[in-house]
Amino acid sequence: MLLPAQVIQKKRDGQPLTETEIRAFVAGFTIGQIPDYQMAALAMAICFQGMDFDETMWLTRAMVESGSTINWGQEECQSAQVSGCSSPDSGTFYADKHSTGGIGDKVSLILAPWVAACGLRVPMISGRGLGPTGGTLDKLESIPGFRTNLSLTELRHVTNTVGCCITGATPEIAPADKKLYALRDVTATVSCLPLIVASIMSKKLAENVDALVLDVKWGSGAFMRTRETSAALARAMVEVGKRYGKKVVALQTDMNQPLGQTIGNALEVRECRSILNPAEPVAAGSADLRAVTLALATEMLLLAGVKKTVAAAHQILQKQLATGAALETFDKMVAAQGGDPAAPLPVAKHQRAIAAPQTGWVHAIACDQLGYAVIALGGGRTVASDTIDFAVGFENPKKIGDAVTAGEPLMIMHYQAAARAAQAEQLVQAAYTIAATPAPTTGPLIGQRFE
Amino acid sequence: MLLPAQVIQKKRDGQPLTETEIRAFVAGFTIGQIPDYQMAALAMAICFQGMDFDETMWLTRAMVESGSTINWGQEECQSAQVSGCSSPDSGTFYADKHSTGGIGDKVSLILAPWVAACGLRVPMISGRGLGPTGGTLDKLESIPGFRTNLSLTELRHVTNTVGCCITGATPEIAPADKKLYALRDVTATVSCLPLIVASIMSKKLAENVDALVLDVKWGSGAFMRTRETSAALARAMVEVGKRYGKKVVALQTDMNQPLGQTIGNALEVRECRSILNPAEPVAAGSADLRAVTLALATEMLLLAGVKKTVAAAHQILQKQLATGAALETFDKMVAAQGGDPAAPLPVAKHQRAIAAPQTGWVHAIACDQLGYAVIALGGGRTVASDTIDFAVGFENPKKIGDAVTAGEPLMIMHYQAAARAAQAEQLVQAAYTIAATPAPTTGPLIGQRFE
Repeated sequence: MLLPAQVIQKKRDGQPLTETEIRAFVAGFTIGQIPDYQMAALAMAICFQGMDFDETMWLTRAMVESGSTINWGQEECQSAQVSGCSSPDSGTFYADKHSTGGIGDKVSLILAPWVAACGLRVPMISGRGLGPTGGTLDKLESIPGFRTNLSLTELRHVTNTVGCCITGATPEIAPADKKLYALRDVTATVSCLPLIVASIMSKKLAENVDALVLDVKWGSGAFMRTRETSAALARAMVEVGKRYGKKVVALQTDMNQPLGQTIGNALEVRECRSILNPAEPVAAGSADLRAVTLALATEMLLLAGVKKTVAAAHQILQKQLATGAALETFDKMVAAQGGDPAAPLPVAKHQRAIAAPQTGWVHAIACDQLGYAVIALGGGRTVASDTIDFAVGFENPKKIGDAVTAGEPLMIMHYQAAARAAQAEQLVQAAYTIAATPAPTTGPLIGQRFE
Repeated sequence: MLLPAQVIQKKRDGQPLTETEIRAFVAGFTIGQIPDYQMAALAMAICFQGMDFDETMWLTRAMVESGSTINWGQEECQSAQVSGCSSPDSGTFYADKHSTGGIGDKVSLILAPWVAACGLRVPMISGRGLGPTGGTLDKLESIPGFRTNLSLTELRHVTNTVGCCITGATPEIAPADKKLYALRDVTATVSCLPLIVASIMSKKLAENVDALVLDVKWGSGAFMRTRETSAALARAMVEVGKRYGKKVVALQTDMNQPLGQTIGNALEVRECRSILNPAEPVAAGSADLRAVTLALATEMLLLAGVKKTVAAAHQILQKQLATGAALETFDKMVAAQGGDPAAPLPVAKHQRAIAAPQTGWVHAIACDQLGYAVIALGGGRTVASDTIDFAVGFENPKKIGDAVTAGEPLMIMHYQAAARAAQAEQLVQAAYTIAATPAPTTGPLIGQRFE
C-alpha cells in the first residue's frame, strides 16, 4: 500500500493510479485523514498529467461512495451497499439531464416537467450561478415560496408523487466533491478535465438514475470556449458514465449567444412557463431554446427505453405539451416544493432599450459579458453571500446574423437602479461585435452526439 | 495585488512570477496566513513549470528574509535590515562550503578547520543524514560530548574565536525553508530544481558569508544521478548566488563510488583526523577525498581573496597541514563545541571481510546501496526518531577499476549484531558490478567548474 506522498509522486511522474490508490486517497481525504495539502498537490499533479477514463471513473466512484446514493425505495443506499441500489419496480424509469451551463440556459425548468409528463421520473439535483452563468436553483427561487433545500426524503417524495423535482445537493450527496471543490477553488485546480468530470458525474451518479443525458455547451458563454475542449469533456463524461455502468448520451450545443429570449431569473421562469403553456403564442425568440430542450428530452425518453423511436418520442412530447400536461406537472412541482404557481413573479421597476452602437450585422457576442451584465444589475452573485435581485435582466436580445441599425434596441433591460443599469449597458454594448457585412452562417445549434 | 489562488494559476499556466508575488506568498506562508494547501499547489505547479533564475533568487531571498541573517558583529540582522548586514571588519573573511551529499563524503570535517587555519572564518551550518547519504552533524556527534545544537550566539563565538564551527541550523535561520521542506516531503515536491536551489541557498545565504563554494555531486551515490542534472543544479545555485550579490563557485564532483576509505560515522571522523594529522602516514585509499577537499579549499581561499593564485593557495594549505595547524584547529573546534578531542571514538564489537562474489574487475558500484548498508548496520536512520550507532560502517572498499578475486574482501565491515551484518553484506555484494574484462577508465573526479 503506497503512502499518500507516493501516490502524489506516481501521478506527478505521469503514471496511472490504481482503483485502490484513488479510493484510499479520496476516502482518507473525506474523513480528514489525508490533509488538504496532499489533496491540493495531487489535484495540481492531475492538472498537468491528466487521468485516463478508468482513473476518472474510479475517482468519480470514490466520490459517489463518500456519501449516499439515492435508493428509490425507502432508504438511502449507504456506500457499502451501492451495488444493491436500483429502482424499486422495473416499470419506473428515473432519468436526469445535466448542462455544463450557459447564458439564458433555462432548459431544466422546461425539460424536467415535460419529460415527467411523459412518464419518466426526473430527480434533478441542480446548482447555483457560477461565474457569469446563471443557476437553475436561483431561477426557481424567483417563484415566491419555492424551496431548493429539500431533504433526501423530500426529494424522493416529490419525484415519486409529481414525477420531477429540482433541488440542491443534500449533505449526503458526494461530500468528497463538496470538500474537493472548495479546495480546487482556492488552489487554481478548477479548470482540469478529469476533476471537472468527476465533480459533475459524482453528483449525477449519486442520484442513481437509469439514464443520464448531458448538454455540453461550447462557445463564448460556456465554460468550454472551443468545440474541441467541450467535445473532450463530453467524451470523458460519457466514457466515465459507461464504465460506471450507466446509460449516458451527450449532445454538444452552441453557447455563442444567449439561449431563448430572456436572461435573468424571473424573466427566464416566465419564458419557460410561456413555452410550457399551450394557450400562449409560440415566440420566435425562443426557437433555439425549444429545439435544444426537445433534443435533450427525446434523448432521455429513448435512453430510458420509454420510447423506441425519435418519432414516437416526439409524438408523446408534443402531445403532453399541447394538452397542458407538462405545464400542469411544472405547477405541481412548484407547489410540492413550497412555491405558489399562481403568485406573480417579481418585476423590475424600470425597463429601457439598450441601443446598438452602430449599424451592420451582429457577427459575434461575448456571451459571458451578458452574464456579467446581469450580475451588474444585481441578478447574480459576485461573492457567495450576495443576495439576488430576481426581477432584473434582459429580454429579446439581438442574435448572431441579425441586422441592426445604430440606435435600434440590442435588447430590453429590466433594472432597478440607474447606476447599475449604466454599468450593465456598457457591458452589453461592448459584448456585441457588429460589422458592415452580413455575418457568415453560424454552425449547428446542436452539434456532435456522444454515446 | 493578486490573490494566492491567482499566483498559483499564473505559475500553473507557465508565466513567471514577480518578486512582489513571491515575497508576499512566502511571507504569508511563514506566518500561516497562506495555508499549507495553497503552498502545496504552488510547489507542485513549480515542479512542472519551473522557475527562471530571477524567480528562484526571489524565492531564496524571501526564505532568507523569513528569519534572521547572521551579523558577524554582535546582533543578528533582522529581515528588515538585511541590506545593512556585512562583516564587521574588512580584514576578516567569512566563507562556507556546501555539498549536495554523498557516500563517505566527509569533506566538511577536514575542510573547515584546514581553511580556518589559513585565516578564513568558516561558519558551517550542516545537516543530518538524508536517505542513503550520511550527515556531517551525525558524524561529528560520534565524538563524545560534541554539540551540534549551538545557538546563534555560540555559533558566532566559536567561529570568531576558533576560526570555524560546524553546527545545525538554528530556529532563526530561514524558518520558511523548514516549513516548506516539511511540506515538500509529504507532497512529492522534493525533487524540483528551483525548490532545491532555494532550500540550499537560503540557509547558506542566511550565514551572511563573503564567499560560498558548492560541491555538486553526481552519480550513483548522489541525489543527482547524471552529469546533466547535477550541472543544471550547479548552474542554478551559482546564478542565484550571483544575482543575490554573493561570490559563488561550484565544482561538479564524481560520486559513483565512496569518497575516501571509510563509510560510517566514527570511522569517517577517524579518517579525517588521520588526514589532518601530519604524524600519520598518507593513506592511498584517501587520495580522492584529499583531492576533492584541496580543490574546494583552494576555491574558498581564492574566492574570499585571501590568496590570489592557485599556487599560493596550495602553498598555505600544505603548510597549515604539515605544521599540524589544521589538526589543532579541528581539536579546538571540537573542544569549543563541548567535545573531547582526546576521547576514544566508539568502536564496533566485530569486524569481518565481505567477500567478492566473483572474480573480475569492478565496473560500477550502486553507491546509494552502500549508504543503505550502513543504515542496515544501525549507522543511519530509517525514520527521523531512530538513534544512530556511531561505531558501525565499512572500511577500505574496492573502487571502480580494481581487480578482485572471488572470496577476496570487497571491504571490511564493522558491526555489532550478526543479523544486521548479514543484511548489510547482501546489500554490499549486490551493489558491486564485477565483470570479466578490465573496466573502462572513469571520468574525472573533479568535473566542470561553474562561476
